[in-house]
Amino acid sequence: MATTEPTSPSVTLEEIARVAGVSPSTVSRILNGTVRVSPAKREAVEQAIAQFNYRPNVLARSLASGKTNTIGVLTQTIASPFYAEWLRGIEDALYEPGFTPVFVSSRWNVTEECSRIEQFIARRVDGIIILHGQLDESRLEEFSRQTPIVVLGRSLEDGPTLAGFPIDNVQGAFDATRHLIAEGHRKIAFIAGPTSHTDALERLVGYRMALEEAGIGFDAIRVEQGDFLEAGGVAAMERLFERGVGFTAVFCANDQTAYGARLVLHRRGLRVPEDISIVGFDDVPTSQYATPPLTTVRQPIYDIGRQAAGAIVRLIRKEPVTLSAFPLSLIVRETTCAPGRVEPIVDFTS
Amino acid sequence: MATTEPTSPSVTLEEIARVAGVSPSTVSRILNGTVRVSPAKREAVEQAIAQFNYRPNVLARSLASGKTNTIGVLTQTIASPFYAEWLRGIEDALYEPGFTPVFVSSRWNVTEECSRIEQFIARRVDGIIILHGQLDESRLEEFSRQTPIVVLGRSLEDGPTLAGFPIDNVQGAFDATRHLIAEGHRKIAFIAGPTSHTDALERLVGYRMALEEAGIGFDAIRVEQGDFLEAGGVAAMERLFERGVGFTAVFCANDQTAYGARLVLHRRGLRVPEDISIVGFDDVPTSQYATPPLTTVRQPIYDIGRQAAGAIVRLIRKEPVTLSAFPLSLIVRETTCAPGRVEPIVDFTS
Repeated sequence: MATTEPTSPSVTLEEIARVAGVSPSTVSRILNGTVRVSPAKREAVEQAIAQFNYRPNVLARSLASGKTNTIGVLTQTIASPFYAEWLRGIEDALYEPGFTPVFVSSRWNVTEECSRIEQFIARRVDGIIILHGQLDESRLEEFSRQTPIVVLGRSLEDGPTLAGFPIDNVQGAFDATRHLIAEGHRKIAFIAGPTSHTDALERLVGYRMALEEAGIGFDAIRVEQGDFLEAGGVAAMERLFERGVGFTAVFCANDQTAYGARLVLHRRGLRVPEDISIVGFDDVPTSQYATPPLTTVRQPIYDIGRQAAGAIVRLIRKEPVTLSAFPLSLIVRETTCAPGRVEPIVDFTS
Repeated sequence: MATTEPTSPSVTLEEIARVAGVSPSTVSRILNGTVRVSPAKREAVEQAIAQFNYRPNVLARSLASGKTNTIGVLTQTIASPFYAEWLRGIEDALYEPGFTPVFVSSRWNVTEECSRIEQFIARRVDGIIILHGQLDESRLEEFSRQTPIVVLGRSLEDGPTLAGFPIDNVQGAFDATRHLIAEGHRKIAFIAGPTSHTDALERLVGYRMALEEAGIGFDAIRVEQGDFLEAGGVAAMERLFERGVGFTAVFCANDQTAYGARLVLHRRGLRVPEDISIVGFDDVPTSQYATPPLTTVRQPIYDIGRQAAGAIVRLIRKEPVTLSAFPLSLIVRETTCAPGRVEPIVDFTS
């Protein structure tokens, strides 16, 4: 039988079963992870496997059983403190039910995204988790007919093999801006994220809504374009100063942007928060260690990753999944305070 | 033939060849990536493939050809700014020769490391890159007889299918400590990394060597244990203060440790670098955006990743690889200066 052909050295499943004192079908089920067996039996089988240096032919087994016990995880980039937390949560939560996550990245490229998903399907992963992603819903639905898919950071019409986990970016940005308004700020700049990211656009909406609700009104002159990275935060902050527009606080579309903005303030001899307040978005792990620790909108990134892992396992087992948007919460640390504590250094009159 | 059986819809290799105006063997070679073909031919074949929505059966093809065009990349953790830079370099450099990196992590666990490598081999990756790793050399050699292996951050006796890229941690730590001594510091504390990490031990050696070379002498009372994470840096710095031992500078075994240490100084109202100088190690991308930007030992992490990718491709192609330790360089930014610029706040007399 193909599912149990050893590659090297040549030992049969039957021999392993004999040594372990169990039936060959128990060995097979342990190898395929299809059922729970008693710890004692599992240990006996594992010892016998170790004794023979038995290595099942995973490829042949996959072709026969259609199961690989792997989950394909598609990230946009492998090097981002934000995605890293999602990946960590996914990995930790897949560990217990015995799935191995395999990570690939599509580098923000929709063609690559498509081809990575096709590769996952061709390699018979049991399920796929996509972090954001840019494929349209009909395409995702089509792929999910071949392998269950969970998408993080997007709202989708869920089906038996497809589930989306939306993030309430509008509410988060609204809360952050309202916090600054409550502190007494009226001139609040915003450093936006890339316009190609839905997340970024939603955060701009939340910022605008809070200003309008407070009767302050939205002014595009206080909005600068960032890139969700530190370098973009630096450049955007410099442009805000060059423009000569007054502001006492700046809300940044993510934490990395806030780090860049904060460095510009440091370079210009402006104190945070006494001269300028800053709020970020995401609460990546480093933000609590920034000096001063960053006030930011906390996404429970790690927990979202864990729940996505749980959801893909349920879809694989054909169990129902119901998802709702994750609650975001403002974490007030030490980069915000009331304005006007000290003599302003920038021109606030404009 | 198994290598060319389409899965869906049912179109033969011959039909694709006919439409593309090339021979079936050319299509096969393009699919398998075994030879270079002219861009015009490749494009014609790709168009024909797209036209038919042709999807080769990757598993069947792998079994037949023994090639998957994937590289297994084993990291210790998926969520680390340091490893992320290695992964990014590896991914970027594998992209051009047409390999897809597949990332898995072994969570600092040698048993998991072993089983992940076995899974890679069973799934027929063309080569494996291991970041650090804890398997002993004989075990690595054994695995490398089945699939070429490149190991980052370790010195190995290189063979035709195994290559190690050592990092000169001793020299880097020596240079960092010598920089502080050159600035005039004599009481230099050290926050060490985990004793289970060779890297961490080597950095301690470099610190000690520099002190001894300068005639200052090593004093274990100024060494505290960290964990290569921010939280460990916070705890170690607090312990250094509680111990009441005097110091005007602190060298941290990595940048994340330095972030934690720096936060403690901020909390205690100590200025960096006027009151206490800090040096880190690694130069992860965030360090240039810290406030103030961190003086640190720069590892060319991204470039090391790129070179590892180049090396695994050469090993796969049976070309020779010669590797030497990467040069580290001290990047003097803004967290170090001469001591005693201001009245000391800690007790320097002890």
